[in-house]
Amino acid sequence: MTTADTAIISSPAIRWFNKRLELLDQRALPHQTLWLPLSNADGVADAIRDMVVRGAPAIGISAAYGVVLAAMELGVNANQASLKPAIDLLAASRPTAVNLFWALERMQSVISEQTGLALIASLTAEAEAIHRDDREMNHRLAEFGAALFGKSNLGVSLIPEGKSVYTHCNTGALATGGHGTALGIIRSAWESKKIVGVYAGETRPWMQGARLTSWELMQDDIPVTLVVDSAAGHVMKSGKIGAVIVGADRITANGDAANKIGTYNLAVLAKHHGIAFIVAAPLSTLDPDLADGSLIDIEERNADEVRTVQGKPIAPTDVPVFNPAFDVTPAELISAIVTEHGVIEQPDTAKMAAHLRSAGVIA
Amino acid sequence: MTTADTAIISSPAIRWFNKRLELLDQRALPHQTLWLPLSNADGVADAIRDMVVRGAPAIGISAAYGVVLAAMELGVNANQASLKPAIDLLAASRPTAVNLFWALERMQSVISEQTGLALIASLTAEAEAIHRDDREMNHRLAEFGAALFGKSNLGVSLIPEGKSVYTHCNTGALATGGHGTALGIIRSAWESKKIVGVYAGETRPWMQGARLTSWELMQDDIPVTLVVDSAAGHVMKSGKIGAVIVGADRITANGDAANKIGTYNLAVLAKHHGIAFIVAAPLSTLDPDLADGSLIDIEERNADEVRTVQGKPIAPTDVPVFNPAFDVTPAELISAIVTEHGVIEQPDTAKMAAHLRSAGVIA
Repeated sequence: MTTADTAIISSPAIRWFNKRLELLDQRALPHQTLWLPLSNADGVADAIRDMVVRGAPAIGISAAYGVVLAAMELGVNANQASLKPAIDLLAASRPTAVNLFWALERMQSVISEQTGLALIASLTAEAEAIHRDDREMNHRLAEFGAALFGKSNLGVSLIPEGKSVYTHCNTGALATGGHGTALGIIRSAWESKKIVGVYAGETRPWMQGARLTSWELMQDDIPVTLVVDSAAGHVMKSGKIGAVIVGADRITANGDAANKIGTYNLAVLAKHHGIAFIVAAPLSTLDPDLADGSLIDIEERNADEVRTVQGKPIAPTDVPVFNPAFDVTPAELISAIVTEHGVIEQPDTAKMAAHLRSAGVIA
Repeated sequence: MTTADTAIISSPAIRWFNKRLELLDQRALPHQTLWLPLSNADGVADAIRDMVVRGAPAIGISAAYGVVLAAMELGVNANQASLKPAIDLLAASRPTAVNLFWALERMQSVISEQTGLALIASLTAEAEAIHRDDREMNHRLAEFGAALFGKSNLGVSLIPEGKSVYTHCNTGALATGGHGTALGIIRSAWESKKIVGVYAGETRPWMQGARLTSWELMQDDIPVTLVVDSAAGHVMKSGKIGAVIVGADRITANGDAANKIGTYNLAVLAKHHGIAFIVAAPLSTLDPDLADGSLIDIEERNADEVRTVQGKPIAPTDVPVFNPAFDVTPAELISAIVTEHGVIEQPDTAKMAAHLRSAGVIA
């Protein structure tokens, strides 16, 4: 659906019109550009679950608008009790990314104070702020990350300039409110001529690297080379990679990071090759309430995501499948975590807490 | 094509009828069972290049029959000079698997002595011997490999019984003259109750794990779980894997092993997790003429193998791609190489040479 009216806030994957949210259907990219209009929380929860929208920050933004749409539907009857079912539904849409719960908590902090039309106005302002702020945070994060090239020793090795970086999944404008997290660093590093290109792992089973990261980088004229995920070691051994840069869906108090399945492989491979492994994530991805990665709920998705590719069977239709959507990279394999507040080198519980305190997230 | 006549030698992927070779089209598995009839060397070379037949031993067997078909076409004019173009064509079909060159050398050793109909008879006998012997060698190899479970300390750790094994690509009856190399060990280990199941990596881009290994193991009622290649680290970390067992396309004098892209990732991950990494290969895969893996010619295949899956685009149609078909695992990451002659633990140049001497391959 295309519309004549103008979006109030628009980012590459999310458009907010008053009373209507539009999400770019990322399942159809890069071949088709379809915008899915949504007018209630049920539709937003379905869109998150079915991966119309994906990427931890973009999921959080979408869920926030889902609460606004639920409140608008309730009108004068909107209050903490009447909104609870919609918020619970949105919270249950995907389990691993903490940004979803963070965004819903921000929305709930508004709810507890107000009701009816005043509440709708406040919720709308809060969701728009979450959306607007994300892009700005990504730019700050990207500058901190790009500054690591050529000068920082992160315990593994200096991040050399003039090489390529390797990335996984999609952490760009499509996964966020704009610019991107890991891909934001990559964009900024490219602009400041610190890297010569990007190797993108295709990221089975959903192919976010092949479909989304390739496409975003080509649109920005940043040289990208697509590889199958299992070529990562061979590429690292070639000496062309200066750093591995990925996003995260949840980072625990000790610095363990849950991210797209395959991230842990890359961290082990980076360590073996003496290559820096950088995790880029906004502060909203940090979850100080969980002590370590073993406590993270790892979503297991449908077997047919592995048995088929774009609807075509590529395996026996009844073969048993294990399809975890995420894995956990332990902090000791992470050279640095980069947020919009700065860099945590060789993260551990003390450094993570100091970063969160200094950013005002915890007391 | 189905035929009324009976094959002289038949294995799951290769049937030999006098004057005709039939290859199971492995590109169509597991959804269709198509046998491609071939009556000349050109057709066999095309079938190898296009991956109708794949797996280093099966490629060698097919190429040997290709030489027979070329000689039959030449009839009384068959001799060393007239057969040279066909042999050169077959040798150029794929660059990495040494079994191809080994089989062609065995055929050439027959050619140099004879001509005409006598030559055809000798070549036929030689190709049939290569085909028949492969299955028997696989069974011997499998017994040596299965015996490693539960008692051998390979420098990494004991290979525990009662766990699963992880494998990559397809090294079974479809890749060989029957039974399989790595999958042969897995079959024998399953029969002797030393393992409880198999995790099969799907093996992008050609999906040999998803299409072929899953299918073979399901046919044998061996419990298989299919995973995307990038889930390997997550699965190993879970503690369910007792050993990683893979095949090889070429093993150099020092024990470096070229195998399907992604094998090197698995070797690094196995080392990180203290899991034994076993390479299964017939003696014909050992190439003592190359000092180490840096000298192996790594085939780079077409970009569209990565940009598409079964003809469906999964990336921008013009995205640059790096598509190496193989990678090299250095000997120091290999716990043991298993051949039909025995086990080389923690391989190095001296142990490899001793094994080849004891097997009578080198003087």
